[in-house]
Amino acid sequence: MAKVAIMGYGTVGSGVYDIIRMNSKRIADNAGEAIELKYILDIRDFDDHPEKFLFTKDVNDIICDSEVSVVAEVMGGLHPAYEFTKSLLEAGKSVVTSNKELVATYGAELIAIAKEKNVNYMFEASVGGGIPVLRPISRCLAANNIIRIAGILNGTTNYILDQMITNNKSFDAALADAQAKGYAERNPAADIEGHDACRKIAILASLASGKQVDYTKISTRGITDITLDDVKCAEKSGHTIKLIGYAEFFTNGKVYAHVEPMVIGADHMLSGINGVMNGVYVTGDAVGDVMFYGAGAGKMPTASAVVADMVDSVIHKLTRKIMGWKKADENFAANSDEVKFRYFVRTDCAEAEVKSVFGNTTGLSGLDQSDTVFITPAMSETEFNAAKDKLGAVKTALKVLG
Amino acid sequence: MAKVAIMGYGTVGSGVYDIIRMNSKRIADNAGEAIELKYILDIRDFDDHPEKFLFTKDVNDIICDSEVSVVAEVMGGLHPAYEFTKSLLEAGKSVVTSNKELVATYGAELIAIAKEKNVNYMFEASVGGGIPVLRPISRCLAANNIIRIAGILNGTTNYILDQMITNNKSFDAALADAQAKGYAERNPAADIEGHDACRKIAILASLASGKQVDYTKISTRGITDITLDDVKCAEKSGHTIKLIGYAEFFTNGKVYAHVEPMVIGADHMLSGINGVMNGVYVTGDAVGDVMFYGAGAGKMPTASAVVADMVDSVIHKLTRKIMGWKKADENFAANSDEVKFRYFVRTDCAEAEVKSVFGNTTGLSGLDQSDTVFITPAMSETEFNAAKDKLGAVKTALKVLG
Repeated sequence: MAKVAIMGYGTVGSGVYDIIRMNSKRIADNAGEAIELKYILDIRDFDDHPEKFLFTKDVNDIICDSEVSVVAEVMGGLHPAYEFTKSLLEAGKSVVTSNKELVATYGAELIAIAKEKNVNYMFEASVGGGIPVLRPISRCLAANNIIRIAGILNGTTNYILDQMITNNKSFDAALADAQAKGYAERNPAADIEGHDACRKIAILASLASGKQVDYTKISTRGITDITLDDVKCAEKSGHTIKLIGYAEFFTNGKVYAHVEPMVIGADHMLSGINGVMNGVYVTGDAVGDVMFYGAGAGKMPTASAVVADMVDSVIHKLTRKIMGWKKADENFAANSDEVKFRYFVRTDCAEAEVKSVFGNTTGLSGLDQSDTVFITPAMSETEFNAAKDKLGAVKTALKVLG
Repeated sequence: MAKVAIMGYGTVGSGVYDIIRMNSKRIADNAGEAIELKYILDIRDFDDHPEKFLFTKDVNDIICDSEVSVVAEVMGGLHPAYEFTKSLLEAGKSVVTSNKELVATYGAELIAIAKEKNVNYMFEASVGGGIPVLRPISRCLAANNIIRIAGILNGTTNYILDQMITNNKSFDAALADAQAKGYAERNPAADIEGHDACRKIAILASLASGKQVDYTKISTRGITDITLDDVKCAEKSGHTIKLIGYAEFFTNGKVYAHVEPMVIGADHMLSGINGVMNGVYVTGDAVGDVMFYGAGAGKMPTASAVVADMVDSVIHKLTRKIMGWKKADENFAANSDEVKFRYFVRTDCAEAEVKSVFGNTTGLSGLDQSDTVFITPAMSETEFNAAKDKLGAVKTALKVLG
């Protein structure tokens, strides 16, 4: 019998509770022993809850209870989640979390404390909601050097872009629709400006490189300046625009990362990911391309990943799982000129002018519009910006994935 | 330092060797210690091999060497792989394998021996090649009751169907093309008759249910009677035909499984899986739908999964991973009338006749042909067959996925 606690009874926390109650047999079978929920921490009152006796407002009830071996931190936010997690790990309890902000910010430190205390700090739910992705990358691709990760990591922005594509909505109309459906917050900045995806690609890049990638250094551009014309023009030429968290890993140990709307060919598996779904496309030097797809958010999918981590922590009470990364003092961030991309460009300029500036471009035909639309050869950002300035009057300029 | 051996130096075995040599640092980092290859077992001579001193023809060299802790069985076939694996497990060594036939046939027995001896028997590479799928289902979805698994599990047949769709090739021409490219064997029966996919869905269904699903009892139909007309007709109506390994898990513990060409809507993620790629689509009661995608075969992808299992076995030298299933004496196979599917039907009969027999069908329009094409309501196989016989003159009848 393993005794566990939940910190935070919001959307994900109540999902964790529901799954523990709903699937107790399956969970016990997989964990090798039954799981008993002993505490739920929340500052609010839940007097009408059928198990109201589980609730506490004092984290010390959990920290000081030597019976509790695994705690799910599903509070969100940096503080006090950071302080609570640290105290719990130091008290010798494993902690599992869906808190991407905390993992992206304090991951290396919390992983080091867990290692020192011989307990686990697991965070599968922090990227891709319920989609198995961190553990597969860490464990199943353990024989690979990871070359590249490209992910649709934010369901809200994917829904908005999808609405623009399929229902001809403007960005503002699609955002309003997403808010009405509960997919976007009333203050949608974290999603539409790319900050959420930025935390997630930082976690993926840290895991794949073994070194904490500082998310504040990742060039991040959201979807707020994507117009219906951009989306339609991409679609007509057999492409789609997706907000992509991208990371590339060099053999010299450097890591390049960005979050940007990118143009993807219709035959790429990421282009078929619609609505609020997420997908993480990983390229390893042995396995080639693999992709993990599913619901990147939501109560039950996210809670599914949290409870799986709880199960894994129960199984691995005695042997820590080796999964995580270290702080890195040296600067290993590649700058944007160390990678080359092709660019998707839409302009008023005539094709002859385009060719004189960009050289061997690929023209995109079949577009019933006056703009010249083309894809450049692979070039660095500095090279591209210089050419773009020379051409002038560029309406759209997006990196191409693949 | 963990000492390991490879049994079988064919395509996958030489890939395992290559990855161990190529990615030794990454492997040691992930395993927590270096891996030293001590033996390669093969009955053939490899006198020109740069490390020919590693080769042995006598399995007892490995069985009797107490230093060897992990062995990769990549020989294929049932015998002597079964006897060798059993002896190795009984000698207290962990065994990892890509041998789907062995796992599907003797899985429960070998898993039980491994458990008794406190070692691991791992087989991630037996399904989906390099795609992480068994471990994610077992571990990352540990909090879920699995409801359904539908997979494109065979790259050869997927390539053939893809060639029929995109290049208008007949089945025979597409098969010849696959053979010319090395995707299909000269004797292609195991692939095109569905036997390969059958072993794989049996392994997936066994893992998800915890009980060995007897692959000889799985209704299996290959793609040999799929015509270019079928494929084109499906395509024109916004569908695609894929060979699907399918399993459904009932709350009463019963399991239904089949391997059949099925019709899939264009918006389903499995429909976008082209060429030799594989995908496994899993539905859990908490996580909803997730999909795992990648190369389902090939030297390096398959070897990637084998070496990952070797790494995991090294990490878990002291604590077994709980992953597998048991023999089941009771009959838990659901019969085909316990599940209902919609059917995609192509016939000469007029629409009025179709409606009188099948009731509330969904007509498919936009087809420039004389046939009547429709999708039936969900019905059991017996119900469908009775209606089909009544209608007569049915050219195509395929279950619809989703």
